[in-house]
Amino acid sequence: MALNRLSRTLSQTRLRPSLHSISTRLSSSSSIRSSPSCPTPSSQNDAREGQPHFPCVDAHAARASRIIASFAQRSSTPDVQQPDTGPEPPYARPNPTSYHKYHHPHPLPLSYSTTPLPSFDIAYETWGTLSPAKDNVILLHTGLSASSHAASTSLNPSPGWWEKFIGPGKALDTNQFFVICTNVIGGCYGSTGPSSIEAETGKPWATRFPVLSIFDMVRAQFLLLDHLGVNKLYASVGCSMGAMQSLAAGWLFPERVGKIVSISGTARSTPSSIAMRFAQRSVLMADPNWNKGFYYDKLPPHTGMKLARQIATITYRSGPEWDQRFGRQLRQIPESTAQEPGPNRTPALCPDFLIETYLDHQGEQFCLKYDANSLIYISKAMDLFDMTYPSLNALDIKPLPSPSIPAEAQLQQQQHKTSHSKSHPPPVNAPPHLSDLAAGMTPLADIPTLVLGVQSDILFTVEQQREVADALRMAGNENVSYYELGGVWGHDTFL
Amino acid sequence: MALNRLSRTLSQTRLRPSLHSISTRLSSSSSIRSSPSCPTPSSQNDAREGQPHFPCVDAHAARASRIIASFAQRSSTPDVQQPDTGPEPPYARPNPTSYHKYHHPHPLPLSYSTTPLPSFDIAYETWGTLSPAKDNVILLHTGLSASSHAASTSLNPSPGWWEKFIGPGKALDTNQFFVICTNVIGGCYGSTGPSSIEAETGKPWATRFPVLSIFDMVRAQFLLLDHLGVNKLYASVGCSMGAMQSLAAGWLFPERVGKIVSISGTARSTPSSIAMRFAQRSVLMADPNWNKGFYYDKLPPHTGMKLARQIATITYRSGPEWDQRFGRQLRQIPESTAQEPGPNRTPALCPDFLIETYLDHQGEQFCLKYDANSLIYISKAMDLFDMTYPSLNALDIKPLPSPSIPAEAQLQQQQHKTSHSKSHPPPVNAPPHLSDLAAGMTPLADIPTLVLGVQSDILFTVEQQREVADALRMAGNENVSYYELGGVWGHDTFL
Repeated sequence: MALNRLSRTLSQTRLRPSLHSISTRLSSSSSIRSSPSCPTPSSQNDAREGQPHFPCVDAHAARASRIIASFAQRSSTPDVQQPDTGPEPPYARPNPTSYHKYHHPHPLPLSYSTTPLPSFDIAYETWGTLSPAKDNVILLHTGLSASSHAASTSLNPSPGWWEKFIGPGKALDTNQFFVICTNVIGGCYGSTGPSSIEAETGKPWATRFPVLSIFDMVRAQFLLLDHLGVNKLYASVGCSMGAMQSLAAGWLFPERVGKIVSISGTARSTPSSIAMRFAQRSVLMADPNWNKGFYYDKLPPHTGMKLARQIATITYRSGPEWDQRFGRQLRQIPESTAQEPGPNRTPALCPDFLIETYLDHQGEQFCLKYDANSLIYISKAMDLFDMTYPSLNALDIKPLPSPSIPAEAQLQQQQHKTSHSKSHPPPVNAPPHLSDLAAGMTPLADIPTLVLGVQSDILFTVEQQREVADALRMAGNENVSYYELGGVWGHDTFL
Repeated sequence: MALNRLSRTLSQTRLRPSLHSISTRLSSSSSIRSSPSCPTPSSQNDAREGQPHFPCVDAHAARASRIIASFAQRSSTPDVQQPDTGPEPPYARPNPTSYHKYHHPHPLPLSYSTTPLPSFDIAYETWGTLSPAKDNVILLHTGLSASSHAASTSLNPSPGWWEKFIGPGKALDTNQFFVICTNVIGGCYGSTGPSSIEAETGKPWATRFPVLSIFDMVRAQFLLLDHLGVNKLYASVGCSMGAMQSLAAGWLFPERVGKIVSISGTARSTPSSIAMRFAQRSVLMADPNWNKGFYYDKLPPHTGMKLARQIATITYRSGPEWDQRFGRQLRQIPESTAQEPGPNRTPALCPDFLIETYLDHQGEQFCLKYDANSLIYISKAMDLFDMTYPSLNALDIKPLPSPSIPAEAQLQQQQHKTSHSKSHPPPVNAPPHLSDLAAGMTPLADIPTLVLGVQSDILFTVEQQREVADALRMAGNENVSYYELGGVWGHDTFL
């Protein structure tokens, strides 16, 4: 695969049009422009006339009414398919003809449970043509909330989440490669997850679903590869949580992975990123509608999901981008409702700055698009991801031999090795966890790996990218390419 | 005042014991060690026996029961004063004899309301002795949620939030200076805020309270100074939101402010910091108990406050500290309840990593200590703070003349000026908002100013600290001292 081309594609011009188009789509969205004005509770004149108004709070109740109405409508007209509005199939009305599904009828062993998952479905989509030798396969791994719909297909012509990177002559060149993308197990876009029916009870698993690991997701993907007769991948490619899977694939099946591409990922979740995901899970689980995960025949925790997405968006984007894009601009108030036009209008406690309406909009768009329990389970799997030697060994999924890397010696040995890209030799005084990480990543020593990060990423920081590259080099991997991108888009740069 | 000494104090050894003591207090806290174990919902064996348990969710209902019980107890024994448990007077049972209070019987004009606040109370505490000439006063401004209790007094001997920095021979040397600290208006520790009774209705203002600005807070403080007969401050000192007030004091009353100290503050809230505060307000306002602000005779939004504080804590601290302090350690499970001791125990969806129990504990400790509406109003005032010329002029509180600073020329002129500290000359290609900021900050041109920031601060980034210093220098201030601290404690370093 053209690793260089992928890297160039990411670092060059394509990102700008991409962002621009999102920005244009967003700024032209009626949801923002016509968001209900939030009369200020600050004017005493108003206040004395009655109770202050908070449309941003009323929106939660209004959303609940809409959901209940749509439930009623759907149950009365079950055959009517509503059109998709975005690139992803909306949650709760997936179109099972828009992707392929493999049913694995045998148990899937799990990292954190003595009882395996009895069986599972895995949804997947493909692009390009499988070569007769089945040796041209790129397995593309998704981030937290993405479906298998990475790019448009004949079954589902709507654009996918990596549309710009998959196709003839694109970074993942379908003239040459057969690209497979799955919905991870634990997800809600066709693969088995908490919203799936548990055979034994005939009801959704909900939070009786087992805690998953990134390794579990990858093992399910390789059972799909077995089913497809694919013995060895040309490459395992992923961004964000997909990068974790990409590394995990190389670790579980080093002989079956030709190359690894890790974009904006990590080999070991840090307390800061755990904290940010914990905050999201906390607001979600505090929504009374979450009901400890048992909401599938009730109102879903739409408000908790909206709040969780607002927090997530803050971690996906970056300050410099927002400085340029929003600055301190206020939302526009339709002239008909504006009492005090101009910059000295009375501020509102509901979203008022453009950055606030943007976050509000992001949360609103997402809150019914994804299953709350999937969010909880998959974000937890990300927290649990840790490729350091002691952690991996404790998992007992593939016991490693005792670390054979004399880390210091290895360090010296690797000091002179530089990739053809920007060189980041391992630090001279490597912290202990880096040696542990190198020990844990030993199985990846012979797999050429591209590590790519973004300097403005606050979730998977550039230090974590360097850590992956450093640990791989310390583990003896002589084919580590490392790139760092500038730009202001933070973690979402890969999109 | 010994600016150098303050700076030295902050940058030197005192911070380590401070953090250590917090850390020790926390790690020895029974609340963390004995936090309810969160049996995993992941074990299918467990799951098949019944519903999964989520003690972290049950905690919200348990807290509600405790609050209701304490309401009942307090109303049946109104005279019983419970002892304070922390450095701040707990919200809802302040001890009015532990601080001074000034009642201003005249209206206070407000930045964002045509109707002034009819009258107001301001709580304050003092340390040291006022000189006969009343020329030794340091006005200390607080961060968002602090009371006037910056240090112990004879009225309230419990340690204050800046105990280490106030006293004989300390950074704010009470052998020399008379230090005054107030609870800001909008707060809930004795000063007039949303929880105060509105004379006209005889009920708490709630969200009929007017939106405040940082300038409003400072004007109230200067009316207190008038009352005390203090014409000119030796210095205006503040950290975080206090730094905003410190700058605002110099702007409103340049002839009454001798020196300015701005620690971990900003002159212009950025979209990123607005986003982080917006997330907190959103989770709080989504708590049904918030009830659009009218909860004073009901259950307060304790869950929303806990969630908001968890998010806030993420912004106050920093990744490197957490890497060192928590890493990927799991909470300890009491042996009696541990089913699977050791690192390979089944993970829980409730707080399980030590960083999660830490955030959970921070939220739990805070959720009843502060008024939810005060949090909303004061965090909004921080968002609204912007000293750029157009913004200030729009406020109409003290119209500025048209900007007289030829920014480019000023820039050239200032290039060679360096303070005696680490020099950060204004950037050669200053962004437009920096010129606007310099124009807005012209009234501060003659006030010696110390700007101090922390490199690991993600809320008030070091770029914002440099911006304050740059803008002041561009505005013609030849007495700007600028220091940047290292360390891993982020925004909370100043504590």
